[in-house]
Amino acid sequence: MQLGSGHEHGSQNGLEIGGDTFVVMAGPCAVESADQLHTIAAAVAGAGAAMLRGGAFKPRTSPESFQGLGVAGLELLAAASRATGLPVVTEVLDPRDVETVARHAAMLQVGSRNMQNFPLLREVGKAGMPVLLKRGAAATIDELLHASDYIRREGNEQIVLCERGVRSFDPSTRYLLDLAAVPVLRERTDLPVIVDPSHGTGRAALVAPMARAALVAGADGLLIEVHNSPATALSDGPQALRPHEFAELLADLRRLVPLCRRRWSRPSAENRATSSPLDDEVIAP
Amino acid sequence: MQLGSGHEHGSQNGLEIGGDTFVVMAGPCAVESADQLHTIAAAVAGAGAAMLRGGAFKPRTSPESFQGLGVAGLELLAAASRATGLPVVTEVLDPRDVETVARHAAMLQVGSRNMQNFPLLREVGKAGMPVLLKRGAAATIDELLHASDYIRREGNEQIVLCERGVRSFDPSTRYLLDLAAVPVLRERTDLPVIVDPSHGTGRAALVAPMARAALVAGADGLLIEVHNSPATALSDGPQALRPHEFAELLADLRRLVPLCRRRWSRPSAENRATSSPLDDEVIAP
Amino acid sequence: MQLGSGHEHGSQNGLEIGGDTFVVMAGPCAVESADQLHTIAAAVAGAGAAMLRGGAFKPRTSPESFQGLGVAGLELLAAASRATGLPVVTEVLDPRDVETVARHAAMLQVGSRNMQNFPLLREVGKAGMPVLLKRGAAATIDELLHASDYIRREGNEQIVLCERGVRSFDPSTRYLLDLAAVPVLRERTDLPVIVDPSHGTGRAALVAPMARAALVAGADGLLIEVHNSPATALSDGPQALRPHEFAELLADLRRLVPLCRRRWSRPSAENRATSSPLDDEVIAP
Amino acid sequence: MQLGSGHEHGSQNGLEIGGDTFVVMAGPCAVESADQLHTIAAAVAGAGAAMLRGGAFKPRTSPESFQGLGVAGLELLAAASRATGLPVVTEVLDPRDVETVARHAAMLQVGSRNMQNFPLLREVGKAGMPVLLKRGAAATIDELLHASDYIRREGNEQIVLCERGVRSFDPSTRYLLDLAAVPVLRERTDLPVIVDPSHGTGRAALVAPMARAALVAGADGLLIEVHNSPATALSDGPQALRPHEFAELLADLRRLVPLCRRRWSRPSAENRATSSPLDDEVIAP
Repeated sequence: MQLGSGHEHGSQNGLEIGGDTFVVMAGPCAVESADQLHTIAAAVAGAGAAMLRGGAFKPRTSPESFQGLGVAGLELLAAASRATGLPVVTEVLDPRDVETVARHAAMLQVGSRNMQNFPLLREVGKAGMPVLLKRGAAATIDELLHASDYIRREGNEQIVLCERGVRSFDPSTRYLLDLAAVPVLRERTDLPVIVDPSHGTGRAALVAPMARAALVAGADGLLIEVHNSPATALSDGPQALRPHEFAELLADLRRLVPLCRRRWSRPSAENRATSSPLDDEVIAP
Repeated sequence: MQLGSGHEHGSQNGLEIGGDTFVVMAGPCAVESADQLHTIAAAVAGAGAAMLRGGAFKPRTSPESFQGLGVAGLELLAAASRATGLPVVTEVLDPRDVETVARHAAMLQVGSRNMQNFPLLREVGKAGMPVLLKRGAAATIDELLHASDYIRREGNEQIVLCERGVRSFDPSTRYLLDLAAVPVLRERTDLPVIVDPSHGTGRAALVAPMARAALVAGADGLLIEVHNSPATALSDGPQALRPHEFAELLADLRRLVPLCRRRWSRPSAENRATSSPLDDEVIAP
Repeated sequence: MQLGSGHEHGSQNGLEIGGDTFVVMAGPCAVESADQLHTIAAAVAGAGAAMLRGGAFKPRTSPESFQGLGVAGLELLAAASRATGLPVVTEVLDPRDVETVARHAAMLQVGSRNMQNFPLLREVGKAGMPVLLKRGAAATIDELLHASDYIRREGNEQIVLCERGVRSFDPSTRYLLDLAAVPVLRERTDLPVIVDPSHGTGRAALVAPMARAALVAGADGLLIEVHNSPATALSDGPQALRPHEFAELLADLRRLVPLCRRRWSRPSAENRATSSPLDDEVIAP
Repeated sequence: MQLGSGHEHGSQNGLEIGGDTFVVMAGPCAVESADQLHTIAAAVAGAGAAMLRGGAFKPRTSPESFQGLGVAGLELLAAASRATGLPVVTEVLDPRDVETVARHAAMLQVGSRNMQNFPLLREVGKAGMPVLLKRGAAATIDELLHASDYIRREGNEQIVLCERGVRSFDPSTRYLLDLAAVPVLRERTDLPVIVDPSHGTGRAALVAPMARAALVAGADGLLIEVHNSPATALSDGPQALRPHEFAELLADLRRLVPLCRRRWSRPSAENRATSSPLDDEVIAP
């Protein structure tokens, strides 16, 4: 999958997902402010991430929790995308918001709680842009594939699937990350499959080992939460990596990537706004 | 909770839910045709059900499955409500459909897959009419209560909660019906709690024992699927009771209800369009 | 199943399990002392229980927890059985202890953790006396039946199965009590099936509703923990009923039993050592 | 942990587990015959495995299934150990068999079903030799650690823990392999932790990706089932690798091991009876 050109901020030209590439999408759980997003976006771009993630519309268990900045958050994401050259993936919760979110992002995320929100699946299918579809916490792999069929049925084949942990009984982790889902999905679909070790474990200390495991298990990429101040994050702080932890993880992953016969995916050079020690690196499969 | 008067079809006047009443909502999984709905609605009304259920908008795992009749299904439900005097509960999937569904039903159902569809919860909250909120298949009881908070926050306190089984490992049943959720919810909320033994087990043979169990465990009612021809049903046939099985179950339940210090809930006499052997029965607590 | 005569303490003559009877086994989780056991045994006998339960060998998650009184506990159980006329069911953990436990009890319990302890199953099979086999916390119903086949294969058909909750994700209850297992087992086996709502929920407040639910769902009996001082119990206090709560529950159940076309099972009159208000009661199906 | 010298077959001298080593234990699920075991043992030794696994006493769901060769199987294992130089790990099911099994093996395995078989844990604790303790399919990580405490309490600290999948809801895999358990255990214990991707997935095609994932997630080793004829295996054929698949996997793992700052663990040279292309290889951390 080629992340489509032609969007207004133009930043996603040339980013490849799937095939022999490995793509890291990273950023804060929620967009909280211009400063916060700018800091984190620069850090993840500098460390070698290929895409920026961040939530403007946040699905929260309780209505008392921070619900995201909404359209203002989308605008901050678009600005951060322009500043860093990283295309943006962000969640859409409401079928009525698909058009608005699509104007600000390169990829629409359908979250775990909405995997079987069929009106939303149809709407993102119609939007004609890449969709990141996360597995529900109690969804079988077959149900995930059926959910992707709703998007496909609208003529949209640009779908990336994401394993992010299922409900289980051990309170040691927030969810139970089902890494075997990666090779199982590989047998049943050609769609790229990425893994979210942040939600999949719920604890920052477990993100790096599960990220490495996802890569060697055959994942096409990762979705990772990064925050400059996890302790004060408005959402899911305990599972966020600090920028330097994220950079260390990416260094680790880059050593493993060639052994997995993959190439590190990055936006094409002309789109990269942030200089990075990686710019001149040759990463051969 | 008093099922609100003032709706255009007027059928729901005087139906009480919660308190010392016991309410049975029954009907087909999906509205398939005028004939099918008429037959089933008459049967469940005659057997003593208090409300008619039936899906016009169906959330189906695969987009290839029957998706419901949509607005035509709503109109059939409204007609069946007028014919039988039973108020209708039916599912709404899309926040954009809430107004339409609300015009045809006495109670809006938010299904299991949408328990954390927050835009939908907000919209049914604003509709200002009773809502049936089903527990998600991987939702904790706390998460169910938080979901109800989204409805409440819009000023709508008329919420009925519904246990309908959670995901588990034994293929003997489709879901694992968590009846202990009934007394647990009783401790934590004043909202009425009903049980859906049809989805909660997935097999018609298990519906009656689980329905009885729900009653004596303290449930305020039941949601039961009934079909005149389960083998040819367009949705969830294996879990549907045939009309005579449903009538036998209701006879059983009516024997147990007084022992549970409850009253059998029915629409008030002037609204009952279908004569029933129960009409003259005195059901004392 | 007729609880076998001929044991040295002779107390179990005439107790029937299965068929149209309903049997309540009750007592402390662990035998702690002569006084404790005497008090509780008298209370459960007086309230109408048919059998006395109590653990002498306790399987505890941590080796630091109270492990039971062992043989001394068995002797206290045998004495309590003589005093009350109630036959005893108690757990055996070690195949090497089967003979010893068999000398002191009328029924051998194989606990949840040992459902697939095959050497133990074979040994209780050889003991030629009734066995109570509890479902493992992650066992399917098929696996439970296969486990009972190990006992049967030794020529022992006197097996009672017990549903006691499976592992699940909601911390609201200790286990998730799978009451649908009762009718499912009814379809697949002729063995009597009882339910343990104490372990199945882990909380005393949930025991009564789940006990009633088990009865009307078709269970042949219950296994209930009772303690005169739950707060100081050496094992599983939070799930123990106090004697007066147990008596109230039994009064409730006795009202429901005839509606379920069952008879309340009790040891035959000549074996009853404890007088009870129930002695003269006629309980007709 | 140093696999103890001094056993009668002397093969385990010098094998290190834990620390910076990575140990692969492999062999058939069940010992079926001298020929079968000889073929497989030679293959796994030649591919670079450090230990030979194989079941002589098999815990099988149904009593109709093959139950293992018993003592004859132990003797075949001891012979295969002498022939290949690989120390043997094999399961013990019955506390009465611990002494016999200990005479034929270098490490005693306590299987998943017996994780909370406390008499067995105490007996292997007393045996004073290394124990492989597998996590129960519904056991939390805390419960696994408490189970290991039973062994420790008898003075035996030589314990290796093994993650092998937990029960979950998706039939795509036999169990759900919980790889996050590896870093979680690392935080809570100094005991070595290995992973069994064969039982943990139940399908041969998933073993290699999960084996690689376990390594990079921080596991100290693997337990892998290998069979020369999976289609005719008497136990768990669908999850067995063929010898050439196993050899390919080990080649893959050996490329990853140095990146994980680990050394490939093998029996010391004087104990290696099977020549292997690896004999002269220098594997530096």
